Amino acid sequence: MNKGTASASVSLQDIEAAAERLRGVALLTPLLGNAVLDRELGARVLVKAECLQHVGAFKFRGACNFLSQLSPEERARGVVAFSSGNHAQGVAYAGHLLGVSATIVMPRDAPRAKREGTRRWGAAIRPYDRASESREDIAEQIAGETGAILVRPFDDPKIIAGQGTAGLEIVRQLEQLELTADILLAPCGGGGLLAGVSTAVRELSPATAIYGVEPEHYDDHRQSLRTGRRLKLRTRISTHCDALTAPTPGEVTWPINQANVGGFLAVSEVEVRSAIRYAFHHLKLVLEPGGAVALAAILHNKLPVRGKTVVIIASGGNIDSDLLTSCLEETSD
Amino acid sequence: MNKGTASASVSLQDIEAAAERLRGVALLTPLLGNAVLDRELGARVLVKAECLQHVGAFKFRGACNFLSQLSPEERARGVVAFSSGNHAQGVAYAGHLLGVSATIVMPRDAPRAKREGTRRWGAAIRPYDRASESREDIAEQIAGETGAILVRPFDDPKIIAGQGTAGLEIVRQLEQLELTADILLAPCGGGGLLAGVSTAVRELSPATAIYGVEPEHYDDHRQSLRTGRRLKLRTRISTHCDALTAPTPGEVTWPINQANVGGFLAVSEVEVRSAIRYAFHHLKLVLEPGGAVALAAILHNKLPVRGKTVVIIASGGNIDSDLLTSCLEETSD
Repeated sequence: MNKGTASASVSLQDIEAAAERLRGVALLTPLLGNAVLDRELGARVLVKAECLQHVGAFKFRGACNFLSQLSPEERARGVVAFSSGNHAQGVAYAGHLLGVSATIVMPRDAPRAKREGTRRWGAAIRPYDRASESREDIAEQIAGETGAILVRPFDDPKIIAGQGTAGLEIVRQLEQLELTADILLAPCGGGGLLAGVSTAVRELSPATAIYGVEPEHYDDHRQSLRTGRRLKLRTRISTHCDALTAPTPGEVTWPINQANVGGFLAVSEVEVRSAIRYAFHHLKLVLEPGGAVALAAILHNKLPVRGKTVVIIASGGNIDSDLLTSCLEETSD
Repeated sequence: MNKGTASASVSLQDIEAAAERLRGVALLTPLLGNAVLDRELGARVLVKAECLQHVGAFKFRGACNFLSQLSPEERARGVVAFSSGNHAQGVAYAGHLLGVSATIVMPRDAPRAKREGTRRWGAAIRPYDRASESREDIAEQIAGETGAILVRPFDDPKIIAGQGTAGLEIVRQLEQLELTADILLAPCGGGGLLAGVSTAVRELSPATAIYGVEPEHYDDHRQSLRTGRRLKLRTRISTHCDALTAPTPGEVTWPINQANVGGFLAVSEVEVRSAIRYAFHHLKLVLEPGGAVALAAILHNKLPVRGKTVVIIASGGNIDSDLLTSCLEETSD
């Protein structure tokens, strides 16, 4: 039984238990085929559309798995989290469902969609300045003052197990289609989604090669895998992928991902914007930049997929309308 | 057994047979819940996301059911269809899959997304001018000259049975959720989707009240139901709902819809644009105007839904980026 310590690992049983907790609460998101994508790539591509999950991102899974395991006494103390927006909304909505008050430490420049989505479910927002303040420090200060439980965005076994339920669903949905994935690609920020999904997929579908996808200047996992140790990047280059800017692999997630993941791929901002546009035109899905990196990776040939069955996770759809509009105005492809 | 005559009706068995033909070919589109929508309306709303169907609209279902029943000799003659774009793409893609050449009579002002989607699958486009030419005449001329089989957009039992497979899926998906719909709303142009879906739903879920939704100046079904006879509108007012501009209920579809449908609702252009914006912000789905009318109807209180389980069909997502952008720029709600 995981106790939430930093060194605890996550098992398939933890993910299955999380799936039981989330049954009828989280959505079973579709695994979508698309004829245009298949023809263009010469592959069988299936899109796990987590942008259709409650709050528009997979993050509700982990947050709900975590909050639903709090004791009545812990629930009464409330929770605190730091997040650029999707974990924020996930914690806020889980708190709303379970009657747990939530405070979210959120950057002042978080997308409007994410700020509104967090407020919608009754969470209090504590804004901070990304350049001058530490969100971890603020969150720990709030926890210290109020007794609120800190809900980490990825580096926690309960969060990882919750995100892993998406992987469990993928395997079962593939079984229904009588398919096995040759390749699975998931976005990677702190690595929570990837750690959970890869744990489920590696155990249940060992033939599937698993890749993480990062924005090109936030490729801390790719560099860490290359060097064999957790690197911390100090990049100051801006990215639209606000969901994927964690500077270093998680302490809990990294050993899992190091064991499960075949490699990491990086995509450029231009490639991400092109993928958002592609999702609009052909998938009819609204994707945010961080949710579009896996699609960007296969559209821009970051690995060979011809003849393969490929699952990509489209992890979130919380994009502001002005950014989507600017992506749609580009006509380079 | 239906023979395609104008007076033939469509049975549940026809729809079940169509579902067998479409198995593994059409997509089982998701029936999506959404917590934001539920809270705003005080209802349990489920969105049948046909925008995620191949070619971005339900139309592939009917086209594929029709084409797959052609004899080898008929297949060799090819098919011809007239359509503002979604039936066009449906016929084109079904033709591509089955090796049947297709010619589509399509208005010069059809959305770019629909023209490109039709060409993508190898169909020939015969453009026409909506003000001065009759698409039916052009299609019949092509059929006469080439021997091509005419694939009507809605007024054919095989087309209706194909579209009805969406209704069959809805009922089964509701069963899996242990729900029964109190209300179902479907967009209505010629009435093919509504006729097929209502046939399945009325038989399998008789307690469900079924409504068709039309653009306000194209409410020929609403007016026909009121007067008890098929009216033909001569409206010249433009609408963004290019998929729903058939001026009169179909000969085959009307008796079915008259028997099955509890009423028709009409929505304004402003309400449709607001629904497209809502789908972007909260559902993370790309909807075209004609695909958003059922959502518009519940968002704008065209019937009481509080406390009800409501299914809406989001029938298509083929919207050009400039129109979506203009919808997103409006901030009236």
